[in-house]
Amino acid sequence: MPMRKIINDPSLVEDQTVDGILAAFPGHLKRFDATGRGLIRGDAPIQGKVAIATGGGSGHLPLFMGYVGPGLATGVSVGNVFSSPSAEEMLEVTKAVDGGAGVLYLYGNYSGDTMNFDMASEMADMEGIAVKTTLGRDDVTSAPVAEIERRRGVAGIFFGFKIAGAAAEEGRDLDGVHAAAEAAVFNTRSMGVALSGTTIPAAGEPGFTVEAGQMELGMGIHGEPGVEVGPLLTADEIAGQMLDRILPDLPYSSGDSVGVLVNSLGATAPEELYILYGKASQILKDRGISVHRAFIGEYATSMEMSGASISLCKLDDDMTRLLDAPAYSPFLLQQVGGR
Amino acid sequence: MPMRKIINDPSLVEDQTVDGILAAFPGHLKRFDATGRGLIRGDAPIQGKVAIATGGGSGHLPLFMGYVGPGLATGVSVGNVFSSPSAEEMLEVTKAVDGGAGVLYLYGNYSGDTMNFDMASEMADMEGIAVKTTLGRDDVTSAPVAEIERRRGVAGIFFGFKIAGAAAEEGRDLDGVHAAAEAAVFNTRSMGVALSGTTIPAAGEPGFTVEAGQMELGMGIHGEPGVEVGPLLTADEIAGQMLDRILPDLPYSSGDSVGVLVNSLGATAPEELYILYGKASQILKDRGISVHRAFIGEYATSMEMSGASISLCKLDDDMTRLLDAPAYSPFLLQQVGGR
Repeated sequence: MPMRKIINDPSLVEDQTVDGILAAFPGHLKRFDATGRGLIRGDAPIQGKVAIATGGGSGHLPLFMGYVGPGLATGVSVGNVFSSPSAEEMLEVTKAVDGGAGVLYLYGNYSGDTMNFDMASEMADMEGIAVKTTLGRDDVTSAPVAEIERRRGVAGIFFGFKIAGAAAEEGRDLDGVHAAAEAAVFNTRSMGVALSGTTIPAAGEPGFTVEAGQMELGMGIHGEPGVEVGPLLTADEIAGQMLDRILPDLPYSSGDSVGVLVNSLGATAPEELYILYGKASQILKDRGISVHRAFIGEYATSMEMSGASISLCKLDDDMTRLLDAPAYSPFLLQQVGGR
Repeated sequence: MPMRKIINDPSLVEDQTVDGILAAFPGHLKRFDATGRGLIRGDAPIQGKVAIATGGGSGHLPLFMGYVGPGLATGVSVGNVFSSPSAEEMLEVTKAVDGGAGVLYLYGNYSGDTMNFDMASEMADMEGIAVKTTLGRDDVTSAPVAEIERRRGVAGIFFGFKIAGAAAEEGRDLDGVHAAAEAAVFNTRSMGVALSGTTIPAAGEPGFTVEAGQMELGMGIHGEPGVEVGPLLTADEIAGQMLDRILPDLPYSSGDSVGVLVNSLGATAPEELYILYGKASQILKDRGISVHRAFIGEYATSMEMSGASISLCKLDDDMTRLLDAPAYSPFLLQQVGGR
């Protein structure tokens, strides 16, 4: 089955993406290693401030490279499409971003990533760099709440980058930045729906598929099985099913204030995201939950996958202030700018 | 053929999109008319400043509603998917945005839109509102350069909104804002490639298709025929073919400074846009053309269409300053923020 992708040699997709990013925004990011897959802020390392390092597989832009910038993460290493970068690459980014105040690792909870980041953390420790780790694990359908440590990280990690990034920017110490990241991750829940598969370029054909007219609730961003395959429901029904699972999971209750993210997995049109948001915001209002700020667009994609996810982050006063703080990335919508 | 769309009743897509937008960003935009399809800036009308009104069919977000905001357009009216709003709706938006200094119409060159905007312009004139018009007509493949007035407007109209919007914001008069818009449009050229069709929700099936593994160079954003259908080329070949047609058309020459926009038509992944940009920036460098600023992402879509376009805007000193001026829309990337 031929691909619908504008690429060159499939084996060059990852490197040529990084090349294009560096060409597009000179000065915003810089390479720091020989592999070419590690990028840090143009002004990093920043002496005396906690750095945030992230990473994971390619194919999810703006994750992960788009989350590097002032008020966000400090550096990133990306692997091949849907594959972890190596422990050595993680160590390199750790050393490149360290400004003497320690490094927070913030990334999604996938076994390849955790293995490599954990090894990097041990190696960094031997080199005298203090590291703490926070794992994005917001996908409610990936494990029961009693086994939350097994859950996968999806688009909700956005709240982690925004909130922990602001905490680092204002000069909190490593424990403080880690606490902010943990608060963001702990209070965030997401659920997605896939209407199509996606194709790893080097494989040349879809690793998983969803037939037109069908949907898979809870499918992961790498095609991990969801909770239910069935006929495509309406936007209102999908928003309802997602919030039926998300709201009781934390739980989110009347009187709570939340940030809401409606994310396109790639091919889903902005119009559809707003239709989904319209219903979600009604349901939240009916439950007495107030939306402090909404984020709508592409925040964590799976290349040309059709589908969307909804994430909620319950906010206290400190998290609200950090979410509203200025931040900058040329990959993120003005909604992040804090205006 | 079943749709891959997250919607409710297909006849409600347009209204529910607007509802979702208003719910997502309270205060940013407000409705001003009974149809519900007309939106103006939260602070409009702005007394003493030239207003910019735009409009067109739904299905192209961030066009057109996403281009309303400080430093951009002042108001908008949208029709059904791929259909013009009526002359009456255009007149309503004209009256709603008028701050006494006149109104610039800035929209894409399509017959339904021009007919209705022209009628609205005449009616506005009778009500004592001065109107001037600038038409986006950047698509090089839609007519020969000798018949440039027949060309369609595509993603390059972004430069018109950004440059004319900044001119209005800094208080230029109607002639001055019109001149800025004309300069932007005159100096902008675009070309697109489609790798799939898209489906009008109310129709339920694709109005046009591109087979997987094929591409249509120059296909319009409503499926207007392009210049060539053939096997899908590589990203480098596509960038080369696009610039081979774009560069001689103005022409863009050694020593010129340009803004570059690489736009996704909907389903094409960000990674692919950066690969395209990487090659385009190389070609420009080889030709001695310097890129002042790059814009990469979704700026004018066709719902879930797979494909991309490249636009160039040749900049003089005044246009450069206007392009870099602050602007805000929650639909547009931080690249627009002028940082």
